[in-house]
Amino acid sequence: MAKSPETEHPQKAIGWAARDNTGTFSPFHFSRRETGADDVTIKILFCGICHSDLHCARNEWGVTNYPIVPGHEIVGTVTKVGNNVSKFKEGDKVGVGVLVASCQKCESCQQGLENYCPNMILTYNSIDRDGTKTYGGYSDLIVVDQHYVLRFPDNMPLDAGAPLLCAGITVYSPMKYYGMTEPGKHLGVAGLGGLGHVAVKIGKAFGLKVTVISTSPKKESEAISKLGADAFLVSSDPAKVKAAMGTMDYIIDTVSAVHSLAPLLGLLKVNGKLVTVGLPEKPLEVPIFALVGARRLVGGSNVGGMKETQEMLDFCAKHNIAADIELVRMDQINTAMERLAKSDVKYRFVIDVGNSKLQ
Amino acid sequence: MAKSPETEHPQKAIGWAARDNTGTFSPFHFSRRETGADDVTIKILFCGICHSDLHCARNEWGVTNYPIVPGHEIVGTVTKVGNNVSKFKEGDKVGVGVLVASCQKCESCQQGLENYCPNMILTYNSIDRDGTKTYGGYSDLIVVDQHYVLRFPDNMPLDAGAPLLCAGITVYSPMKYYGMTEPGKHLGVAGLGGLGHVAVKIGKAFGLKVTVISTSPKKESEAISKLGADAFLVSSDPAKVKAAMGTMDYIIDTVSAVHSLAPLLGLLKVNGKLVTVGLPEKPLEVPIFALVGARRLVGGSNVGGMKETQEMLDFCAKHNIAADIELVRMDQINTAMERLAKSDVKYRFVIDVGNSKLQ
Repeated sequence: MAKSPETEHPQKAIGWAARDNTGTFSPFHFSRRETGADDVTIKILFCGICHSDLHCARNEWGVTNYPIVPGHEIVGTVTKVGNNVSKFKEGDKVGVGVLVASCQKCESCQQGLENYCPNMILTYNSIDRDGTKTYGGYSDLIVVDQHYVLRFPDNMPLDAGAPLLCAGITVYSPMKYYGMTEPGKHLGVAGLGGLGHVAVKIGKAFGLKVTVISTSPKKESEAISKLGADAFLVSSDPAKVKAAMGTMDYIIDTVSAVHSLAPLLGLLKVNGKLVTVGLPEKPLEVPIFALVGARRLVGGSNVGGMKETQEMLDFCAKHNIAADIELVRMDQINTAMERLAKSDVKYRFVIDVGNSKLQ
Repeated sequence: MAKSPETEHPQKAIGWAARDNTGTFSPFHFSRRETGADDVTIKILFCGICHSDLHCARNEWGVTNYPIVPGHEIVGTVTKVGNNVSKFKEGDKVGVGVLVASCQKCESCQQGLENYCPNMILTYNSIDRDGTKTYGGYSDLIVVDQHYVLRFPDNMPLDAGAPLLCAGITVYSPMKYYGMTEPGKHLGVAGLGGLGHVAVKIGKAFGLKVTVISTSPKKESEAISKLGADAFLVSSDPAKVKAAMGTMDYIIDTVSAVHSLAPLLGLLKVNGKLVTVGLPEKPLEVPIFALVGARRLVGGSNVGGMKETQEMLDFCAKHNIAADIELVRMDQINTAMERLAKSDVKYRFVIDVGNSKLQ
C-alpha cells in the first residue's frame, strides 16, 4: 500500500490544499523528500497566486489529481543544500517557478528549453521521479534540484518579485523568441491582469510603445499613470478599435477566456505577431484571411527555460520591474481565489507564507 | 457615361470571362491601355488556372465584379515596350503574377513587399489607377508596368513554368520568411494540389525531408516516385497520424477547404511552424494548448514581392523545378474548372492561350 502524503518522505511539511473541484482550500499535512546531493531545501516566504492555480484547484482543465497544493511563484531562503550543490548556500534568497525537473537529455533540455521537455515535472500536480506527487508553494518548505532553482537578485523585493517566476517569464520569453523587442515598435497587451501588467512593464523596459487593450475603461488611468503604458484601447469601442487597425507590430494576448482573435489580428501591421500566453479551454477561431493577407502570425509560448528565467529575473532587477501585488495570508486564500475568479485584483495576489499561521 | 470594356482603351483584346456566379466562361471582347512609358505589352502564350480563379469566377469570396477575366499565372512574349523601359525588349520571355501595380511609397513597397501594399492592384478583378477594371491572363495580351513583369529564365519551360508565378511564390516566400529552409529539417506539405506539389519540389531543393499529408491514399506512389517526396501520411489514418506526432519541423498547409488545424499542429515538434497559404472562407479553429505547450506558430503568407518572385523563378530554374501540368485550350476551360472543383487535375491546368481559338 502506498504511504500517505504525510509519511512518504522524511521532511514534514504543511500547506493548504484543495481536495475537490469546489477548489476550497484548507490545511494539509504532507512531507518533502530528504535533501539529496543535488537538492536545495527552501523555507518558503512568499508564493504568488497564478490564474493556473485557480484553474487547477477547480479542475477546470480536467487534469487535477486531488489533493492539490498549488503555487509555482515561490520565493524563499535556502535552509539546506546537498553535497553536489555549488550554486547555492544556506541563507541565499531563491525562487522556484513552474517546473522542478526535466529529463536533461532531450533536444529541448539540451537547448535550455526544459519548459518544453516532454517529461518535465511541474512544481505541483505532477508525478515526481520517485512516483510521489509534487506539491507547490502554498506550503512552508520545498526541496528542489539546484538546476531548477533561481537566484533572486539582491535588489528584487521578495514579495513583489515572486510573480515574475511565472507571470514574468511567461511574457518575457515570447517577446525574446518571436523578436518583439525592437525599440520604438508598438506592442499591444491584451488583458490587464497578472500577466498583462508585467508585460506592460517589460515592454517599456525594451523601449517599446505599449498600448493596453482591455474591455474595462476604468483601468485606463492606472494603466497609463501607474504602469507606464503609452495608450489604452477599450476593445469594446468599435470606433476606437477601427482607428487603431493596422497600427501595432506585436500583441501579447494574456486573455485566458475564450475569445475571437479576429479583432486583435486586425490591430496588427503587415508582418505583425500575436502571441497568446493565456490558456482558453476551447480552441480559438482564427480568420485565415487576416493571417495570409498581411503575413501575420499567431504563436504560442509557455513560460521559459531555466537559463532564460534567470536572465528575465536579472533583466527585471536591472529595470526595477516587479509585480504590483496584494499581499494575503494563507487563511485568506479562499477569499482571494473568489476575487481572482472575478479579476478583482491589482494585479497579483501573493501569499505571505512566512507570516501566515498554516494550521 | 462610362465607356464599354471594348472601347475604353485603344488596344483591342479578347479573353474568356465569367459573367455571373455560375462561373461559366465564354468569349469576351475588351481592350487594354496604350503601352505607356513604363509599360510592357505582352502577347500571352500560357496562363495557369489557379484555384483562386475558380473562387472568383463563382464569387465564392463575395468580391467578384463581373464580367471577370481571371488568370494571374501569365507567360508570354514582349511585343512592345515604353520609352522608360530598360529591363525588357521585344521578344523577351516574361511572366506576370498576381499583382500589376502598388503604391511604391508605403512601408511594404519600400521593403519590396508590394504584395502587402494596401493599395496594390491585382492582375484581375481590381480597379486600375485609371479607374478601369483589370482583366487577367485568360486573354491574348496584357499591358503591365515593367516593375511588375518578371524575366522568365531561359531554361524554364513556358507552359510548366507559368504556375510558379502564383503557386510557386506562394509556397517559396513563406519558407524563406519563416525560416523553413534548414537542410535536413522535416517539412510536411498538407494537400497535394497545385500549390502542394510545387511545395514538395521546392522543399526537396532546399534539402528538406518532405512528407506529403493527404486524405487520398491513392496519391502516395506518385507523390514519392514522381514528385520526390520522402514519405506520405494519410491524414485519415489515426494510427499513422499518431505515429507521426511531433516529428515535423515545418508544415505548409495548402488546403483551402475549412479544416481543423489541431491534427496538423500535433505533427509539429517544439518550435514547429505551420504556415497556411490556402484561403478557407471561414475562420479555422486553433487549439491554443497546441501552440502554447510547444511554442508552435501558425503563420500566413500571400504570394511574394517582385524581387522575391524573380528570385524564386531563378531558384526554380536552377533546380529544374516546374509544375506538373495538364495543358488545355481556352474552349476547354469550363470542363477544366469543373474538374478543378473536384481536385481532378495533376496538378495544375495551364491554358495554351497561344494555340487557342479565342472566339
